[in-house]
Amino acid sequence: MRYTPILMAQHKPASLPTVKRLPSYLHIVEAALREGKEYISGTVIADELELEPIQVRKDLAVTGIVGTPRRGFPVRELIQCINSFLRWNQQTDAVLVGAGNLGTALLGYGEFQKHGLNIVAAFDPAKQKAGTHMNGVRVYSLHQMQDRVQALGVRLAILTVPGEHAQVVSDLLIQSGIQAIWNFTNVKLKVPPHVIVQKEDLSSGYAVLSVKVGLQNAQDT
Amino acid sequence: MRYTPILMAQHKPASLPTVKRLPSYLHIVEAALREGKEYISGTVIADELELEPIQVRKDLAVTGIVGTPRRGFPVRELIQCINSFLRWNQQTDAVLVGAGNLGTALLGYGEFQKHGLNIVAAFDPAKQKAGTHMNGVRVYSLHQMQDRVQALGVRLAILTVPGEHAQVVSDLLIQSGIQAIWNFTNVKLKVPPHVIVQKEDLSSGYAVLSVKVGLQNAQDT
Repeated sequence: MRYTPILMAQHKPASLPTVKRLPSYLHIVEAALREGKEYISGTVIADELELEPIQVRKDLAVTGIVGTPRRGFPVRELIQCINSFLRWNQQTDAVLVGAGNLGTALLGYGEFQKHGLNIVAAFDPAKQKAGTHMNGVRVYSLHQMQDRVQALGVRLAILTVPGEHAQVVSDLLIQSGIQAIWNFTNVKLKVPPHVIVQKEDLSSGYAVLSVKVGLQNAQDT
Repeated sequence: MRYTPILMAQHKPASLPTVKRLPSYLHIVEAALREGKEYISGTVIADELELEPIQVRKDLAVTGIVGTPRRGFPVRELIQCINSFLRWNQQTDAVLVGAGNLGTALLGYGEFQKHGLNIVAAFDPAKQKAGTHMNGVRVYSLHQMQDRVQALGVRLAILTVPGEHAQVVSDLLIQSGIQAIWNFTNVKLKVPPHVIVQKEDLSSGYAVLSVKVGLQNAQDT
């Protein structure tokens, strides 16, 4: 029996918070599989993540999974449904621009590979890096970027350059056919409407941490 | 005139999504200040971030800022209110454990310093790193961690070790007096109730990107 990700098929995406929570559900369900479990209940997942069970059930419903009363969700099918909804069972080629510390950290982040992200080339302005390999990925000079991106037919770029170069590099990438940018810089990129930008912003997490630590200190005094 | 962050003073925190959005508001208001503007409207901020104006006004209200009809929010006061609410106008000392690529990237991330995060020491198991400095921060051996953390009286730790060491290092940190952990590993840490954990998870952002790229591909075909 296959569970089709119905909402995706109808081009009706789930809410952003739901999509953001799916990877944490996947972690827990994969752990359950490793422990040999066949079923997992929404309540168990909810307890683990300190969420309401109704929230978990609503979120998982977008993947098309169907639970069994009193037994919960079948573990293998649930993993397949989440991966299918997120398209993590398909391979997506990407290039990475900016092979500094953050870029190198991302090149070595095994989770991405596991989820189909295949970084096929990296680019960096530093001449001494050109021709080397970082975590198995070949680094090219920035001058070769446009030619290589076009030749590879890649549509996704991961941007880890210093902020002051972000817009220029983004423009060049889009000229070369890039249609989606995963932006790790602190710059709000200006892009044409057909280009997707997903911005990672560590200061959001830091804001939450700051407020929590502030409340903790207030309770201590 | 001072705008007191009323909700914080009453220990009634704003919602998590609100707190997460505050840094992006701050970016925009700081840019307005650099352009010499005295007031900025909620609508202008909303347009820039593709949010509803009512959402922006509700979010900003938690900081205690008061807008002026037809003129909007006073720029300087708004910056002060957001920084005060997030406690970014105060210095917070922290240690970083795991001076690999990601750790080094975080040590060099200027935004954190600007917002009061002061990393006073780094720890790494690699012997050749002990005694060196990375982006101005001294690196110590992991054996020195407990003594140094206690001596420094630091309560916040940034965790960038490989996943397999995360729980052990976290336990040692908590024994040494750490009360908040910014967790960049893929491990869900087990900690006593008094300890705060803020988990950064790149796979959430990757999930959103994957779904957006999937919709883009579906539209193209």
